[in-house]
Amino acid sequence: MESAFWVNSPAVVGLITLVIAAIFYFRVKALPEGNETMNRIAGYIREGAMAFLARQYKALAIFGAIVFVFIGVLLGWVPAGAFLLGAFLSLLAGYIGMKAATFANVRTTQAARSGNKPNTLLVALDGGAVMGLSVAGLGMLGMGVLYVYFKDSELLSNVLHAFAVGASSIALFARIGGGIYTKAADVGSDIAGKVIENIPEDDPRNPGVIADNVGDNVGDVAGMGADIYESMVAAIVSAMAIALTASDAQLPALLNEGASGSNRTAGVILPLILSTIGLVVSIISIFITRGLKNMDPAKVLRMTLIIPPVILSLVSFILMPTFGVTQGVTIALAAGAFGGAIIGLVTDYYTSMGPVQKIAEASITGAGTNLIRGLAVGMESVAIPMFVVALVAYIADHYLGLYGIALSAVGMLGGTAVVMTVDAYGPISDNAGGISEMSGLGPEVRAITDELDAVGNTTAAIGKGFAIGSATLTVVALFSAFNMEVNHAREAAGLGELALLITDSKVLIGILLGSILPFMVGASTMLAVGKAAGAIVEEIRRQFREIPGLMELKAEPEPKKIVDIATKAALSEMILPGVVAVVVPPVVGYVLGAAALAGLLAGSLAVGATMSLYMANAGGAWDNAKKFIEKGKLPGYKKGSDVHKAAVVGDMVGDPFKDTSGPGVAILIKVMSVVSLLVAGLIATR
Amino acid sequence: MESAFWVNSPAVVGLITLVIAAIFYFRVKALPEGNETMNRIAGYIREGAMAFLARQYKALAIFGAIVFVFIGVLLGWVPAGAFLLGAFLSLLAGYIGMKAATFANVRTTQAARSGNKPNTLLVALDGGAVMGLSVAGLGMLGMGVLYVYFKDSELLSNVLHAFAVGASSIALFARIGGGIYTKAADVGSDIAGKVIENIPEDDPRNPGVIADNVGDNVGDVAGMGADIYESMVAAIVSAMAIALTASDAQLPALLNEGASGSNRTAGVILPLILSTIGLVVSIISIFITRGLKNMDPAKVLRMTLIIPPVILSLVSFILMPTFGVTQGVTIALAAGAFGGAIIGLVTDYYTSMGPVQKIAEASITGAGTNLIRGLAVGMESVAIPMFVVALVAYIADHYLGLYGIALSAVGMLGGTAVVMTVDAYGPISDNAGGISEMSGLGPEVRAITDELDAVGNTTAAIGKGFAIGSATLTVVALFSAFNMEVNHAREAAGLGELALLITDSKVLIGILLGSILPFMVGASTMLAVGKAAGAIVEEIRRQFREIPGLMELKAEPEPKKIVDIATKAALSEMILPGVVAVVVPPVVGYVLGAAALAGLLAGSLAVGATMSLYMANAGGAWDNAKKFIEKGKLPGYKKGSDVHKAAVVGDMVGDPFKDTSGPGVAILIKVMSVVSLLVAGLIATR
Repeated sequence: MESAFWVNSPAVVGLITLVIAAIFYFRVKALPEGNETMNRIAGYIREGAMAFLARQYKALAIFGAIVFVFIGVLLGWVPAGAFLLGAFLSLLAGYIGMKAATFANVRTTQAARSGNKPNTLLVALDGGAVMGLSVAGLGMLGMGVLYVYFKDSELLSNVLHAFAVGASSIALFARIGGGIYTKAADVGSDIAGKVIENIPEDDPRNPGVIADNVGDNVGDVAGMGADIYESMVAAIVSAMAIALTASDAQLPALLNEGASGSNRTAGVILPLILSTIGLVVSIISIFITRGLKNMDPAKVLRMTLIIPPVILSLVSFILMPTFGVTQGVTIALAAGAFGGAIIGLVTDYYTSMGPVQKIAEASITGAGTNLIRGLAVGMESVAIPMFVVALVAYIADHYLGLYGIALSAVGMLGGTAVVMTVDAYGPISDNAGGISEMSGLGPEVRAITDELDAVGNTTAAIGKGFAIGSATLTVVALFSAFNMEVNHAREAAGLGELALLITDSKVLIGILLGSILPFMVGASTMLAVGKAAGAIVEEIRRQFREIPGLMELKAEPEPKKIVDIATKAALSEMILPGVVAVVVPPVVGYVLGAAALAGLLAGSLAVGATMSLYMANAGGAWDNAKKFIEKGKLPGYKKGSDVHKAAVVGDMVGDPFKDTSGPGVAILIKVMSVVSLLVAGLIATR
Repeated sequence: MESAFWVNSPAVVGLITLVIAAIFYFRVKALPEGNETMNRIAGYIREGAMAFLARQYKALAIFGAIVFVFIGVLLGWVPAGAFLLGAFLSLLAGYIGMKAATFANVRTTQAARSGNKPNTLLVALDGGAVMGLSVAGLGMLGMGVLYVYFKDSELLSNVLHAFAVGASSIALFARIGGGIYTKAADVGSDIAGKVIENIPEDDPRNPGVIADNVGDNVGDVAGMGADIYESMVAAIVSAMAIALTASDAQLPALLNEGASGSNRTAGVILPLILSTIGLVVSIISIFITRGLKNMDPAKVLRMTLIIPPVILSLVSFILMPTFGVTQGVTIALAAGAFGGAIIGLVTDYYTSMGPVQKIAEASITGAGTNLIRGLAVGMESVAIPMFVVALVAYIADHYLGLYGIALSAVGMLGGTAVVMTVDAYGPISDNAGGISEMSGLGPEVRAITDELDAVGNTTAAIGKGFAIGSATLTVVALFSAFNMEVNHAREAAGLGELALLITDSKVLIGILLGSILPFMVGASTMLAVGKAAGAIVEEIRRQFREIPGLMELKAEPEPKKIVDIATKAALSEMILPGVVAVVVPPVVGYVLGAAALAGLLAGSLAVGATMSLYMANAGGAWDNAKKFIEKGKLPGYKKGSDVHKAAVVGDMVGDPFKDTSGPGVAILIKVMSVVSLLVAGLIATR
């Protein structure tokens, strides 16, 4: 395990993954891209998406520079450099993925024109794979290289933490900014189009449709990508951090009796190696999924949840004994991997099965009952995923203690590349449908893209559930790492151990304060969407009023103005919640001490994890309840009826719930934990 | 302080309070009760309310018998008896209060007929005072008597815990059952009346109106009364429990240097004496409020928040030195008392000022934006109250440690009698309006009752915010008491201290599990309201269909059938959440150990406190946003417009949020803490 082969494997596999991503990228780009109208529309979307990224990256550069200086001054310039690397790789993955997705969308439409559904599925999937592979590949490459360079250095710990903070900061802004963009555009054009002007979805006359399509990429490709990249990085870093700082008594025996090597070194390198194996398994799984293209798309994409855990557990079971490593590692890894799959399936149940039908039925007595039911479904959906996370933690802890919990998070995120591939597939097929509608390609083409899009909705919901579940487990791991880091630093300073008692009044006060933050971020993101959507509605109405002939299809709308409003709103509104997440933990730690900071993290974990599940799942269920009625599955009520309109209200409320606030809150708790881990040494003596 | 005068003072003052309550009761009953129609309608309401109580009490008798046997077998029959006493006194207060409220409503209507607003206010206020004084008086009497009898007994601790569990269990069922009843009736008759049959609110043709009026009493008199009674009891018990079980090092120095007496005895009796002083102050405040009857009712009732903390702090400041007790006690007490007032004022802001106008404005673009805004307001409203609770805890802890936190909760609940008086005033004036409308008394009468009712809405929202805030602080205190009890029991069993580290994996798993429960109770109560409201809508539509001449006012509706549906639904749906709250803590403690139970309490505290504030305040704000539009305060839009209809949707969603799930979740965390405190000794060694 400590041979050059394994030590270099993360970086090497990361590099190979990027080569595969490049092959997918150029394959997709070489596909036929359809007629001129299609390309003009796709061009608008691509342009809008890349313009958003460019402006967002500029804003992040300022933030990054400030944090860089802070870290440099407080912890040294090498960790500061690692911070930049962690951030840069996240941005790079987002950039590549967005490029690929906005190439793939129009090529998916074109494939649908040939009437070949399996091939159409493949184009969207390959486009998504570019993002999936870039995210995981860049992550592994970055951490692999850092490990090789710093493995014998005292800086290793800080370098890794700073790398994770880089990943986290980008994730936070990408998720919140992207979430505000996508839902402001979606809700704004829905209100203006469907409710006020009474024209159908994706209608070419609606100036907001381009922004809506841009938003899908900004939210579900760049936002989700940065989110899951940071979960993967944070899970690995937390496990390595525990191994680096745990006392000998705290670190479990990882090596079998008689095996050679150091227990601690094994603990540090195992998370990297297991993730590398996970990445290889993910690549294999992507190819298996491609091979199943002739099956029902819904089944194929659901299978991507099950295949990776099975292979990963099997490989670990075979490999660990050859390293002389206990099978407890395999158990912790498998618990996490299967736990993630179960959370995905439970999310699927709540957002596309029985509960959705109940919400649709509740719409018969109006929007009020639709909403009451949807909120109740969201609340109910919290229980099983949280229970699964607790159970995974219990199993992992039973075998390997807190280190085991961190390994289970590594296991859950082993399938990152697949999950991200399937998630990025969603906006590509959604965009494909939009392009087909706006280009007037007719119902046959739309039928294919609609079917793929419907599956994409399911996978998006599953992906979100998975992301939140894995975030929760990761935060538990980070929390343990934070506490060990605090006492490690105290020991180094010649101070006694700080017993972080839950009975300590500082801890209790921290818990109360921590419980506030998820609600603050939830409120500010909801308001941001509401405000920006309002501005978009105004602009769309202005265009219909002031552009003569727009309604009669004789004139073109001005989609760039809408794109501009959404971009500006997203960038300005992402700042406050972002800064809160980064600034509050160090301030609380500095003013009230390490105990209060530990309480703060525990309080925000409990509230943040449950709130984000509640919001994401309620939103997903409302969305599909509306679609349930649109598909005519509620006997006696169809699209356009009052019952459908009631369901549209639920969907509208669910939009920011599921794509802005829910994911935003989940990432908040990750960022807070990662930042706390970074500053743990600085506030440990307070 | 340990003189017979002070030792007996709680019981004696409790008794005197009950005498004053009796005087108010008979004074109100002796007032003129109006014409025959009014009395027939008031009779329906009274009958429905008392029938609900009778059936609820029967159901509770079974539950009480089971718990009685459990406590008897596990902890002895004396504590089991104390459990029964705690439960019985809560039921008795509810019974007396409901009687008084359902006498006072029609007499308030009759007073309004005379056109004298101050006198009308007084009738409603006096009716509410019966409940306020009964709740506080019976609580003090019960605890005072138990203290006098058991003060030198080893049983004292268990007797007090069991008394609190009795209070808690009743509170839980009364709040959840009452909450389901009131909102099922409200939402059901609103949908059937306003939305489907298109008749105004409180229309005598609507068979659901009586049930709606019954519900106001069941929810805001019996439910709220049991809730705040148990908070008061739990706050006192937690402080006494800490004093009884804390080690000498943990208990702060309460006596000034040179003062005679035992520090521990002072710690045990102080919470009782301070509450007794609080009760006397409350009675004085009620009379001051009555004296201000000629002022603007909105101002008078808001002043009830400020007067008691001021007097209470002053009295404590003067009295403590005469006992030789440190002024730290006054500071902790005052922090809690003023903290409660601030939380009430903040709740007032979020549920009747700027944020409400924003929600009303958001209704212009439809129900979707109304809901997004309302949810955001609810989330935002969490921050300040939680921060205030944390600040109060910080101040109290700074002076007197964890014991100080418990004393601050005693201070916050010192004004129980006033808060409850003002809260019970709400349904009385609401009922008065309903009776006047159903009796066709004309717009002049309705104008007076409407004004008083509007104030009642505000005080109800404030009362809820106050109840949740004080519940949170009480739970923090109970949590500390629980942890001390655990280690006290371990010491007695010859075991070492259990360090409840927040880094312990059991504690972390407990936190994850604890965060689930508030969402489960939230979901089940939301669903219960939705389901029962649906059944009521069906029955109302059946009556309009099958009773010839009902719509033309030629035939009478059958309100008793609606009352019956609401009663049955409330009683059957309250069981599951109730049992969960009582059973989960002992089971987790027994299976996973005391550390996991501590985590469970911490997780449910963080989530439960914030969720209940979020739901209660969002609901209050939606309600008043609708009223804002109805009063014509949104220029260009009036009652019946599409904008108003959008606001009605928000109000409908807010109904179960504010009156069922929000308060239900707050009480859940109290019950879990009290039950844990009771079983702490039994699971301490696991």
